[in-house]
Formats: sequence, structure tokens, C-alpha cells
Amino acid sequence: MKIYDTPGFPNPLRVRIVLGEKDLLSQVEFIKIDLIAAEHKQPAFLAINPTGTVPVLELDDGTYISECTAITEYLDNLTGNPTLTGRTAREKAVIHMMQKRAESELIDAIGIYFHHATPGLGPILQAHKHPEWEGRTQWGRMHREQAEGGLHYFDRVLREQPFIAGEAFSMADATVLGGLLFAHYADIPVSAEYSALLAWKERMYQRPSVANA
Amino acid sequence: MKIYDTPGFPNPLRVRIVLGEKDLLSQVEFIKIDLIAAEHKQPAFLAINPTGTVPVLELDDGTYISECTAITEYLDNLTGNPTLTGRTAREKAVIHMMQKRAESELIDAIGIYFHHATPGLGPILQAHKHPEWEGRTQWGRMHREQAEGGLHYFDRVLREQPFIAGEAFSMADATVLGGLLFAHYADIPVSAEYSALLAWKERMYQRPSVANA
Ligand SMILES: N[C@@H](CCC(=O)N[C@@H](CS)C(=O)NCC(=O)O)C(=O)O
Ligand SMILES: N[C@@H](CCC(=O)N[C@@H](CS)C(=O)NCC(=O)O)C(=O)O
Repeated sequence: MKIYDTPGFPNPLRVRIVLGEKDLLSQVEFIKIDLIAAEHKQPAFLAINPTGTVPVLELDDGTYISECTAITEYLDNLTGNPTLTGRTAREKAVIHMMQKRAESELIDAIGIYFHHATPGLGPILQAHKHPEWEGRTQWGRMHREQAEGGLHYFDRVLREQPFIAGEAFSMADATVLGGLLFAHYADIPVSAEYSALLAWKERMYQRPSVANA
Repeated sequence: MKIYDTPGFPNPLRVRIVLGEKDLLSQVEFIKIDLIAAEHKQPAFLAINPTGTVPVLELDDGTYISECTAITEYLDNLTGNPTLTGRTAREKAVIHMMQKRAESELIDAIGIYFHHATPGLGPILQAHKHPEWEGRTQWGRMHREQAEGGLHYFDRVLREQPFIAGEAFSMADATVLGGLLFAHYADIPVSAEYSALLAWKERMYQRPSVANA
């Protein structure tokens, strides 16, 4: 298997945590994509992922899988022993719901803020982010507010249960961790009031999959 | 089980098709949410789905599941015989990738166009859609362009294979069908050039789950 990604970036982190949890890191060859040079917006990369984002997993049969959720479904079900995407119907449902919430209310919202209301990754990529559009800074700021709501929401969730989707670590925890990494890069502070979220983060960084990702 | 939704709407359609495919329609009680009156933005509804969208599934144990993908994972795995979300790791990955693409490049993009660059569902809901924000019409129009790219993309996909995620009907087909319904409401025409997409749609409406949804 190959993974096209950019080390140190928030969505790639999600899949690297998954690889660590599944003990699959040694089975993957990583191919580095240069986001700052907008390599992911060039035809060669768009041919493997038309939505132009990393990470992308290439299977040994040549199939390309984009989207962290889809990549995680693959890796988690490889050996028929899923641990991150749920075993029962109810577990799968709750995990996918929280995964989507962690995307729309946190990591994706921060991405919109970062790329539209800040200098983002610099001028080469900014040229692909609708620089001519006057509403973009305000749009970015609205998504920062949404992400701040997301931090509040996940803190509340973690006051009730030890992991984002309930009693066990799941892909949704990896997504919120990606969100917190992105919040750090985007200079969005996590208020000390969010003590359940901060305590959870500390616990998460004690997992080898997270500490070594 | 209960489903909170609004009959005739695009995302509710996705889950109704799933219920038909799984022969579960008779096991569900539907509760109608009035989107035009913005009932989904009031505290009572936000308590069951903080992201304020329909559909929402209520399980018999009182758990609320939002997000069509999560609801579909539940319904498809209830009897241990998944037919819509994939059986193997590879099937699950491809289906989840196409499901996400059908959302971001089609149904969700049309939703943004519809609610921001057209009168949408009218003034009560518009008040929740950032009416003060000057960039909103242009933002909506950019997403209409994205959705037009999505129509083009799915037509190309269907030139190569009979269903959105490959050789079998999956939840991603239901999502693209929801997208086409939304395109119709939003007055986004499907070009006659997209003959593979149009032929697929005709085949889909021969399925009882789609025809009766
Ligand atoms: N929904 C996607 C999100 C991927 C994503 O946004 N990745 C970022 C890197 S952290 C990216 O490629 N950004 C490039 C850009 O926005 O131009 C997934 O789950 O993989
Ligand atoms: N990603 C959500 C999308 C749900 C969604 O957007 N539903 C629409 C109805 S078709 C809605 O609730 N719209 C209300 C609004 O935008 O205010 C899902 O998969 O359920």
C-alpha cells in the first residue's frame, strides 16, 4: 500500500494514527505531496483524487481511495477485526455520526478559516482559494466561530464519556485530534475551561499510535 | 425506530431509499419536521441533533443518530447482512469514498447554492443563513459551479460502471439520487450530454425502493 500525504498535516495525522492503532505502519510506503507548492491541485494529483486533498491511499491493485473515513474503513476491515469503525450496527452508527461531526464542526471548519481568513499555506496555494472573492475573509471567520462551537461541543461530549464516540477509542478520536492539531496551527486557542477536552487530549497522547504519529 | 424528517426533501430521500432497499419501511414511525418554519433550528430539535439537519433516526433505546451515512450504517448492518455499505474492506472503502464525493461535490454543494444564492425555503429559514453576510450570493454561486462539476464527474463515472461505487447498488447511489432531486428543486438542469447519468437515473427509478420513496 502507498499513502500520498504531507507529514505533519492534520488530515494525514488522522490516517497515521489509524495505521498505528492497526499496527500497519510498516506495510505502507509514504509519498510526500507538497501542499505549499499546490502539488495537490495539479493534473497529476487530481487524476488520483479529483477533490484535490490528501491523504490518498493506493491499494496494491492500483485503486485510489481518498477521504480519511474511506481509508479508515479499508484499514480497519483488512483483517476482519474492526476496532475503529464499530462492530455492531449501533456502534457503527454512533462512530460515523461523531466522525462526521468532528469533520464538519471542527477539522473542516478550521480548514476553511485557515485557507480563507489567514495567509494559509502561502501565495501559491492561495491562488487556488478564490482570492478574487470578496466575502472570503468573513466566510473564514464564520467557520472559526463554528470551530469554536465544535470545541465547546466536544468538551461537553467528553464530560459524559471517555472517548468521542463512547466507551472505546474510534476513528472519531483521531479526527478530533487532527482538529486540535489544526487549531494549534491556525492559532485558535483551546480554552482552559474545556478541561474534559484537554484531559482527553493528554490521555490520547499516551497512546503510542498518537504519540508516534 | 423513529425518523424525524421532511417528506420530499433530498437528504430524507436518501434514507427512505435505504429503508426501501432493506425492507424496513414498515418498522419506522416518521415524525415530520417543518423546515420552512425552521423547526430544525429550534432548541427542541437541536437537542436531538446539534447540527440542525434532517433526517435523524431515533433508536428504540433513545439514541439519536444524525447524518445519512451514519443512519445507513445502522440500517444496513441491523441483520448482519450489509448490502449498501460494502462487505469487504475494499468495497467499504470505495463506497464511503463515493458517498463522501456525492455529498461534497453534489448534494451539499447544491444545498449551499440553494440556501445562499436563491430564496431557498423562504424568509423564516433565511434568517438562519447569515442574511447579513455580503459574500453569500457569490458563495452560493461558486457552489453551484462545484455541483455542475459534480454532475460532470458522476456522468464520467457512470460511463465506466453501472453504479456510483462500482458493480452494485450502494448508499452512494441513493446520495446521487438525492442530489438530482435537489438539482431539480434548485433549477440546476442536467445537460442531455450527461447521457450515462440520465440513463442510470432512469434505471434507478425502476427500483421499487426509489420509485416508492
Ligand atoms: N475530507 C478530507 C479532507 C482532507 C483535507 O482537507 N486535507 C488537507 C490537508 S490537512 C488538504 O489536502 N488541504 C489542501 C487544500 O485545502 O488545498 C479527508 O477526510 O481526507
Ligand atoms: N450531511 C447531512 C445533511 C442533511 C441536510 O442538509 N438536510 C437538509 C434537508 S435535505 C436540511 O436539514 N436542511 C436544513 C437547512 O439547511 O437549514 C446528512 O447526511 O444527513
